[in-house]
Amino acid sequence: MIRFDLLEQDAGARLGRLHTPRGVVETPAFMPVGTNATVKAMTPEDVADTGAQMILANAFHLYLRPGAEIIERAGGLHAFMGWAGPILTDSGGYQVLSLAKIRTLDEDGVTFRSPVDGSVHRFTPEGVIDFQRVLGSDVVMPLDVLLGYPHTTAEAREAMEHTLRWAARARAHHARAGTGALFGIVQGGFDAALRAEAARRTVAMDFPGYAIGGLSVGEPHALMHDLLAVIDLELPRDRPRYLMGVGSPPSLLEGIARGIDLFDCALPTRVARTGAIFTSGGRINIRNAAFRDDLRPPDPECPCRVCARTTRAYLRHLFAADEMLGPRLATYHNLAFMGRLAHEAREALREGRYAFWMRRTLDAYTTPW
Amino acid sequence: MIRFDLLEQDAGARLGRLHTPRGVVETPAFMPVGTNATVKAMTPEDVADTGAQMILANAFHLYLRPGAEIIERAGGLHAFMGWAGPILTDSGGYQVLSLAKIRTLDEDGVTFRSPVDGSVHRFTPEGVIDFQRVLGSDVVMPLDVLLGYPHTTAEAREAMEHTLRWAARARAHHARAGTGALFGIVQGGFDAALRAEAARRTVAMDFPGYAIGGLSVGEPHALMHDLLAVIDLELPRDRPRYLMGVGSPPSLLEGIARGIDLFDCALPTRVARTGAIFTSGGRINIRNAAFRDDLRPPDPECPCRVCARTTRAYLRHLFAADEMLGPRLATYHNLAFMGRLAHEAREALREGRYAFWMRRTLDAYTTPW
Repeated sequence: MIRFDLLEQDAGARLGRLHTPRGVVETPAFMPVGTNATVKAMTPEDVADTGAQMILANAFHLYLRPGAEIIERAGGLHAFMGWAGPILTDSGGYQVLSLAKIRTLDEDGVTFRSPVDGSVHRFTPEGVIDFQRVLGSDVVMPLDVLLGYPHTTAEAREAMEHTLRWAARARAHHARAGTGALFGIVQGGFDAALRAEAARRTVAMDFPGYAIGGLSVGEPHALMHDLLAVIDLELPRDRPRYLMGVGSPPSLLEGIARGIDLFDCALPTRVARTGAIFTSGGRINIRNAAFRDDLRPPDPECPCRVCARTTRAYLRHLFAADEMLGPRLATYHNLAFMGRLAHEAREALREGRYAFWMRRTLDAYTTPW
Repeated sequence: MIRFDLLEQDAGARLGRLHTPRGVVETPAFMPVGTNATVKAMTPEDVADTGAQMILANAFHLYLRPGAEIIERAGGLHAFMGWAGPILTDSGGYQVLSLAKIRTLDEDGVTFRSPVDGSVHRFTPEGVIDFQRVLGSDVVMPLDVLLGYPHTTAEAREAMEHTLRWAARARAHHARAGTGALFGIVQGGFDAALRAEAARRTVAMDFPGYAIGGLSVGEPHALMHDLLAVIDLELPRDRPRYLMGVGSPPSLLEGIARGIDLFDCALPTRVARTGAIFTSGGRINIRNAAFRDDLRPPDPECPCRVCARTTRAYLRHLFAADEMLGPRLATYHNLAFMGRLAHEAREALREGRYAFWMRRTLDAYTTPW
């Protein structure tokens, strides 16, 4: 179903190629987030144009709206939204825990009320595999149990054990009735020993790829980096690794340095809608009065279509006038920025100069995260 | 500055070509409305792609935000917004009267408070010419005095006389200090004799084109059509005629039949943002539950990019989920629909079958206006 070729290794960082039935993804790769079967404000053509080869969609949102029946009738998520490339879907577990106000977690699954219409639903390890089969996802995530930050070690162990039991059920059900490639998810909270144990026990189940969950939920960045180093030691070289929900420009680079191949994050698109623009010199907010008559491109060093045709003054005007074109252009630029960053990272990896390139890029990018 | 070639006449309907310094406009033409230096949700490339050759922008909005200084520094409106084709700008008079809550009209001009920040401003016949020179408009409108519907004949005469006095001042100032082609505007309310007089007296000033203002403000459609017929008799054949603010699909066709060459209207883009989609069979609202699992294109007979790649079910989902891509795709489609309608009208005119084509098209389009 999928195949991963590890092409180069440069210290801990990896250059690879993920082959999926819907095309090849050059890694490291940033996946734009298409929560509601759309990367917000973008057409599929726009998304591809920014350099993205694979996107993420959220099973929780799609399950609630438009629902399995309509997506199935449309011929799956790719046909429904018009994206022909590979799609990774999450299980919906994270959104159940973060968005559904009323929910009950038990051994068998999680019951919750829809934030859309208040109706009651239940996710189980088997059910979320079934739903992702309807979606036609190329990479499928199992249901897992997440914690916030901070938490006790006892809580972390309990969530980890629960996640591992669900992973076994997901794997068994997927072997019978699943499609796409089911990844394992490494949980284990913020305890290094638990994380190592979670990684070992997940790897023992032999998944075609491994996701790292439960990070970037409020903990210090240094702690996340330490845990990534611990997990890195336990994961097999020949399988892709996906760091869930992480992907600001600096954290992309830091994650690549620690052996991550796939990233997804809503931040580039979410902040774009508030006027935050990634530039080679760091993040700026285009609403700032300083940009009123700044006739330079949003990022003078960016070759993207928006930077080729738009000035900061015009983009600021669009935001000031509350014009939809503002968020649209800012979203396109930020995704193109992420696409270019991943592309440049791959070039640096190919040439064995990743650490140098990363240091120079982070020094220029003055925004810490 | 501009030249108009009348190529064919088919009963009252006209096929023409408007030559401007920024390109040729095939007429009859529909001009999308770019109020705030953007056709809402569209890039200039999108707008051109829908078949539009000329757009309208609103001087009132641009005067208030971003203001003359920034547009001048950017090199004019075309450079500021990235639209290389011709632009027609209104004088701002209509918006002063409809949007500014506090305003005083006197012989010399109109004073008003900005709805953006409450600051006080003044428009005069000379000032709006100067501002449109800063914009770099290809077709320039003089300040006029408008009335709503209904009104008395005395009010209509007073507004008409005021408009004619301002037109003379605008013409004199434009001859000294204007750029672009200044059109005359025919006012005169809903009295046929006054409209004929207004047209005659405006034509006597010899403008390169004539706009018809103050229609489609709430009066019956039949009344507007009667007045268009009256005005048509007074206007010279060799000058373009522009019907201000009119442009639903049926009113475009009816206007063409009565000798109009240029139209602008915010309706196609405004209603798109609420989910209203023009189709060959009439207007539908895509939010309707009937479209939940309708896998046909928004308009099955439309060759546009959106209809080629999108289903009604998907478009409905985007609106239901409040996704920006919904208004964006609907806007693109409605503009492409208007562009194609104008194109088909021109083809019918070229072949001398306009009345037949219009009847068949209006019969199929089941929405009255």
